[in-house]
Amino acid sequence: MHEITSILIDLFIIFTAAKIAGALFTRLKQPSIVGEVLAGILIGPYVLGWVGVPNESFIHLFGGDEASAHTALMLTLDVLAELGVILLLFFVGLETRVSELMKARGRALLVGILGILFPFAFGFAFMQLFGRTDLESAFVATAMVSTSIGITARVLGEIGVLHQREARIILGAAVVDDVLGLLLLSVVSSTAGGGVDIWQLLLTIIEVALFFIFVVLLGTRIVRRYSIRLERAPIQNAPLFVTLVVMLGFSALAGAIGLAAIIGAFLAGLMLSEAKERYGLERQAKPIYEFLVPFFFVVTGTKVDLTAFRDPQVLGLALGVTALAIVGKLVGGGLASIGLPTRSALVIGTGMTPRGEVGLVVASIGASFGVISGDAFSAVVFMSLATTLLAPPALVWLYRGRKAKGDESQKDSESRGSSHP
Amino acid sequence: MHEITSILIDLFIIFTAAKIAGALFTRLKQPSIVGEVLAGILIGPYVLGWVGVPNESFIHLFGGDEASAHTALMLTLDVLAELGVILLLFFVGLETRVSELMKARGRALLVGILGILFPFAFGFAFMQLFGRTDLESAFVATAMVSTSIGITARVLGEIGVLHQREARIILGAAVVDDVLGLLLLSVVSSTAGGGVDIWQLLLTIIEVALFFIFVVLLGTRIVRRYSIRLERAPIQNAPLFVTLVVMLGFSALAGAIGLAAIIGAFLAGLMLSEAKERYGLERQAKPIYEFLVPFFFVVTGTKVDLTAFRDPQVLGLALGVTALAIVGKLVGGGLASIGLPTRSALVIGTGMTPRGEVGLVVASIGASFGVISGDAFSAVVFMSLATTLLAPPALVWLYRGRKAKGDESQKDSESRGSSHP
Repeated sequence: MHEITSILIDLFIIFTAAKIAGALFTRLKQPSIVGEVLAGILIGPYVLGWVGVPNESFIHLFGGDEASAHTALMLTLDVLAELGVILLLFFVGLETRVSELMKARGRALLVGILGILFPFAFGFAFMQLFGRTDLESAFVATAMVSTSIGITARVLGEIGVLHQREARIILGAAVVDDVLGLLLLSVVSSTAGGGVDIWQLLLTIIEVALFFIFVVLLGTRIVRRYSIRLERAPIQNAPLFVTLVVMLGFSALAGAIGLAAIIGAFLAGLMLSEAKERYGLERQAKPIYEFLVPFFFVVTGTKVDLTAFRDPQVLGLALGVTALAIVGKLVGGGLASIGLPTRSALVIGTGMTPRGEVGLVVASIGASFGVISGDAFSAVVFMSLATTLLAPPALVWLYRGRKAKGDESQKDSESRGSSHP
Repeated sequence: MHEITSILIDLFIIFTAAKIAGALFTRLKQPSIVGEVLAGILIGPYVLGWVGVPNESFIHLFGGDEASAHTALMLTLDVLAELGVILLLFFVGLETRVSELMKARGRALLVGILGILFPFAFGFAFMQLFGRTDLESAFVATAMVSTSIGITARVLGEIGVLHQREARIILGAAVVDDVLGLLLLSVVSSTAGGGVDIWQLLLTIIEVALFFIFVVLLGTRIVRRYSIRLERAPIQNAPLFVTLVVMLGFSALAGAIGLAAIIGAFLAGLMLSEAKERYGLERQAKPIYEFLVPFFFVVTGTKVDLTAFRDPQVLGLALGVTALAIVGKLVGGGLASIGLPTRSALVIGTGMTPRGEVGLVVASIGASFGVISGDAFSAVVFMSLATTLLAPPALVWLYRGRKAKGDESQKDSESRGSSHP
C-alpha cells in the first residue's frame, strides 16, 4: 500500500496548494489559475520536489526502474488532471446553449480557420529560418496551432461573460480549431511515420462529423424529450448517474476518434444543458468539479523545467516561437473579426492564445517519432505555458471595465455554477 | 494522449458497469456491492478483459515492458479505488458521533481483540497442519486477521442501521482490529526481514495513539469552536475545501504512519461530523462519493483470477482458510458479545468477517518477502473475496425483519446521505 500512500500525499499537497495559491491570486486581483499553475511549478519535481517524485517503494514496484516509476506516477496524476479538465469543459458545455452556439457559427468557423493558418505559417517559416528540417518545422508549427480552451473558458467564467457573443465565438472556434488541428496532426504524423494515409484521414473526418451531428441534431432532442423519464429509472440518483456516464463516455469516445477528450466533455455538457434546470445538474456535479479541476492546473505546472532555458539559444527559440504563437492568433482572430468592435477582436484573439496541454501533446508525439530535437521540444513547452499564463491576465485586463462584477462572481461559487445572464 | 484515452475508456466501463450491476442486485433484493464486485470480476482481465489490460501505446510508454505497463495501469485504477474507499469511510465517520462510539468502547475493544486472536490461532494451526513453515503460517494467519470495514459499513448504511449499538461496536472494533493487525504485521514483516525492531514498533504505537487522542479529544473541540469562522474565510466554498483537505490529509497521514488510509478518512469524518449540519457537508460531498465509491468495488473484482482454483489442492487450501477466517470472527465476536442478544452477537461476528483489500495487502507483502507460496497467496485472495461477498447477504438476512426500511433507504439516495435516527 506504500505507493498508494505516497500518491495520496501528492494529491493532498496538490489540492491544498491549488486552493491556497488560487485564493492568494484572487486577492491580488489575478486569475486564480495563474496561481495554481505557478504553485505546480513550485511544488513540482524541478523546484521543491514535493510532488511527482516516486519514492523507494514506488521504484521497487517497477523492479528498480526509476524511469518507469516516474512515468507511472505522472500517469496517475495525469488521469486526475484529465478528469479535472473534463469536468471543466463539461461545465462550459452545460452553460452553453446549442442555439446560441449556432448563431455564432459563421464567425467561429472563420476565427477557427484563420487562427490555424497564421500560427502554422509563422511557425513553419521561423523554424525554416533556424535551419530546421521540413518535418521538424511542421511539427513545431502544428504544436502552435491548437488552442487549449479550458483556460480561456475558466477565465471567462470567472469574469462572468460566458454568455456574451465573444465567448460563443471563442468556444465555437475552439471546436473548429481542435478538429482542424487534429487533421493537421494526422497529416504531419503520417508523414513522419512513412506516408499520408488518405483513407484514415477521411475516416477521421467522417467520425468527427457524425459525432457533432449526433449531438447537435439528435442528442439535444433526445434529452429534451426523454429526460423526464429519468425520474422513474430504477437506479439511485439516476440524473447524476446519466450525467457522469455521458460525460465519461463522450470524453472516451472523442479520445478514441482521435479528438481531444475535452471536446467530448464539452459536447456532453452541451447536450445535457437541455435538462440541467430540471435536475439541478450543475449543483449536483459542482462538488466533483471543485475536487478535480485544481489537479489539472497544478499538474500542468509540475511539468515545467525552467532550468532548460539557461541556454540562450533555447531561450531565443522559445521566445520566438512564443511571440509568433501569440501574434499568429491575434492576426488570425483579428482578421476574422472584421466588423466587430476592436475590443471584441482583441478578446477573441487573446482568448484563442493559450495552447496548454495541446501543444505539449503534439510536441510529445513529435519526440516519439524522433523528428523534434531537444531544444525545439523545450521551446514548444515554453510556448504552451507562456501563452497559458499570459492570456488570463490579458483577458482580465481587456474586461477591466467589468471588474466589479468579476470579483463578485469569484467570491460566490454558487453564482459561478449557475448561468450568467 | 492515447494511454490517457485508454484509461478514460476503462473508467467509463467501470463506472457504467458498477451502476447497472448495482441497480440489478438492488432489484434482486441483494446488496448492490455484491453486484459491483461481480461486475468487476466479469469485465476484468481474467474473464472478458474489457478493463485492466494495457493497450499497445500504453506498453510503448514503458519501453515495451508489458509487466510495468500492467502495474502502472492497475496503479491508476487503484488510486481511484482508494479515493472511493476513502470517501466511503469518510461518510461513515461523518455519520458517527464520538460520544456514541465512546459508549461502545469496552465492548468494541473486546470484539477487536478476540476477533484477532481466534482467526490468527486457527489460521496458524491450519497452515502448520498443511506442513508450511512458521513464517508462511504466520503471514497467512495475519492476512486472516484484519477486517475491511468498508463493505460492512456500506451494507449497514444501506439497511439503515448505522446508528444502532451493533454498528457502533463493529466500527469501534474495526479501529481496534486495524491497529492490532498493523502491529501484528509489523512483527511478522520484521521477522521475515531479519528481526523484530522493538523501537520501530514502539514508535508506531505512539504515533497511532497520538493520532487518535488528537482527533477524539482536540479535533472535535476545534471543529465545534472554530468551524463558524469558515464562513469568513477568503477561499471559495471554504467548508468543502476544508472537508476535502482534512479527508485527504488524514488519509495520507494514516498511510504514512502505517495504518490503513481509510482509518484516517474515518477519523476525518468523525471530527467533521461536529460541523456537518451547519455546512450541509454530506449534501456537498455526496456527488463526489457517488462518482468515486463504485471504483473501489469494481476494481477489487477485477483482481480475481478464478482459474487458479481449478487445482483441487489450491481449492482445498482456499476453502479451509476461508472457513476458518469466518469461524474465527464468529467465535471471537460471539465470545466478546456475551450478554448481548444472539442476533446482535451474530451481526457483530458477521460484520467483522469481510477481509477485502486488507487481506490482499498482507498477502502481497508476504509475497514480496518471498515467504508466501503461490497457492497460499491464491488461498488468501480467495478468502478475502469470499468473506467480502458472503458477509453482505448474511447481514441483509440477519436484518430481514427490517427489510421494508432498507428498501426505502436504498431507493432514496438523499436519505442515505443524511443521518438515520
